[in-house]
Amino acid sequence: MNVSNKIDSYDVTVEPFHVDFTGRMFLGILGNHMLNAAGRHSQRRGWGIGTLNEENHTWVLSRLSIEMWQMPRQNEAVQIQTWVESVIRLFTNRNFAVLRPDGTPYGYARSTWAMIDTQTRKPCDLLSYAGGDILRYVVSPEEKACPIEGHGRFRFRDPQLVRTIETHYSDVDINGHINSIKYIEHILDLFQPECFRQPGIRFEVAYKTEAYMGDRLSFYSQPGEGGETDFEIRKDSGDVVCQAKVKFLS
Amino acid sequence: MNVSNKIDSYDVTVEPFHVDFTGRMFLGILGNHMLNAAGRHSQRRGWGIGTLNEENHTWVLSRLSIEMWQMPRQNEAVQIQTWVESVIRLFTNRNFAVLRPDGTPYGYARSTWAMIDTQTRKPCDLLSYAGGDILRYVVSPEEKACPIEGHGRFRFRDPQLVRTIETHYSDVDINGHINSIKYIEHILDLFQPECFRQPGIRFEVAYKTEAYMGDRLSFYSQPGEGGETDFEIRKDSGDVVCQAKVKFLS
Repeated sequence: MNVSNKIDSYDVTVEPFHVDFTGRMFLGILGNHMLNAAGRHSQRRGWGIGTLNEENHTWVLSRLSIEMWQMPRQNEAVQIQTWVESVIRLFTNRNFAVLRPDGTPYGYARSTWAMIDTQTRKPCDLLSYAGGDILRYVVSPEEKACPIEGHGRFRFRDPQLVRTIETHYSDVDINGHINSIKYIEHILDLFQPECFRQPGIRFEVAYKTEAYMGDRLSFYSQPGEGGETDFEIRKDSGDVVCQAKVKFLS
Repeated sequence: MNVSNKIDSYDVTVEPFHVDFTGRMFLGILGNHMLNAAGRHSQRRGWGIGTLNEENHTWVLSRLSIEMWQMPRQNEAVQIQTWVESVIRLFTNRNFAVLRPDGTPYGYARSTWAMIDTQTRKPCDLLSYAGGDILRYVVSPEEKACPIEGHGRFRFRDPQLVRTIETHYSDVDINGHINSIKYIEHILDLFQPECFRQPGIRFEVAYKTEAYMGDRLSFYSQPGEGGETDFEIRKDSGDVVCQAKVKFLS
């Protein structure tokens, strides 16, 4: 199969209410567009969530690392490309490119997904699911580069509690879980406004446990190793919901 | 001018992350689509915000009343129509229809806007602005019906404080103001989840004063007259930011 048949492109325009006070797209909105692109890419190939649900399976997002050197501005046209970079038994890596109309990149993203059985909640072997059909769509790094670093590691020593929030109706998705994008928004809300005047950002998130409407979430933070800030979100039970790493890029 | 040249239609599809736990579109997302439709409708006719800003003017949303008998579900196609119903010197009324592909309505909305001078913050006479050009686009109620009631009145007696929130980066629009749609989200977050299982909703909001990033907002509520709940949002200064009226429709 030709590489171009394995990469999908989605065009979006940056809407007026999707930009922050600097006039640039909210990262959460971009993340939402990426998840939509991922959903349509897999749906077109027969392993979208709809098809999977019929067979009691679903996709679970495990990691998302977005690195934007510049954020698109209001009314700008943006193309989001997505493709599968690799499949490693229980996980698949999916990449994204965020491009200007002239093809130059605003940035890239990497994501890692597991497929689970919705009844047992156990991960499935992707190499055997549907006869390993997903392997037909793998685009190697030589065929299509994703020139940003892979997901980093988290080492929490003595993170400090910086905010506790209640979760509400608007935080929750169709499965009753806190929407994966909402965590990005809540974490960015912890920063001083001046930070968002920097041109770029690298945002990594590792999803650990689901949280539900009404769960109270506590945000812990510590300075990371390369100038970034690390976050851990915990429920009242102490369960870690997700971890994140944020670095503004000059 | 033909009526059809005065009414614009915008097609949207209900995205996966734009639905609530019942699988139906968040009202805030719908409101966002309406404001986008309004922006494009006025832009196409030469009085969009971009053009106005060049002449130190801008549109200010004063009232928005949305009545949805049913909310569109995930993946459904929705057409949003918008037109100007009337112009009354300092205010213009713009309506919206939210339609299914077969033309039957999910619901309607009414909105009221003022145009202000961005330097003096005073409202402008719409009948004289650009030679009253806006009057060319008025569609009378006889030509295009908007079969929902007009904006209601607010009479606060002894509203009770129900929540106080801090505002953050993600609440704010390109002007540094709390995004008008965010108020809708924050108000709906005050309701118990069961309410959202009702098929419809009527949501009215009256915008009074701007709030800014970092402003603390206190939500006061009281039972309204026709089974609805009335809300008033106040800053720490006591200034009323907006008032709202919510009624779930069975």
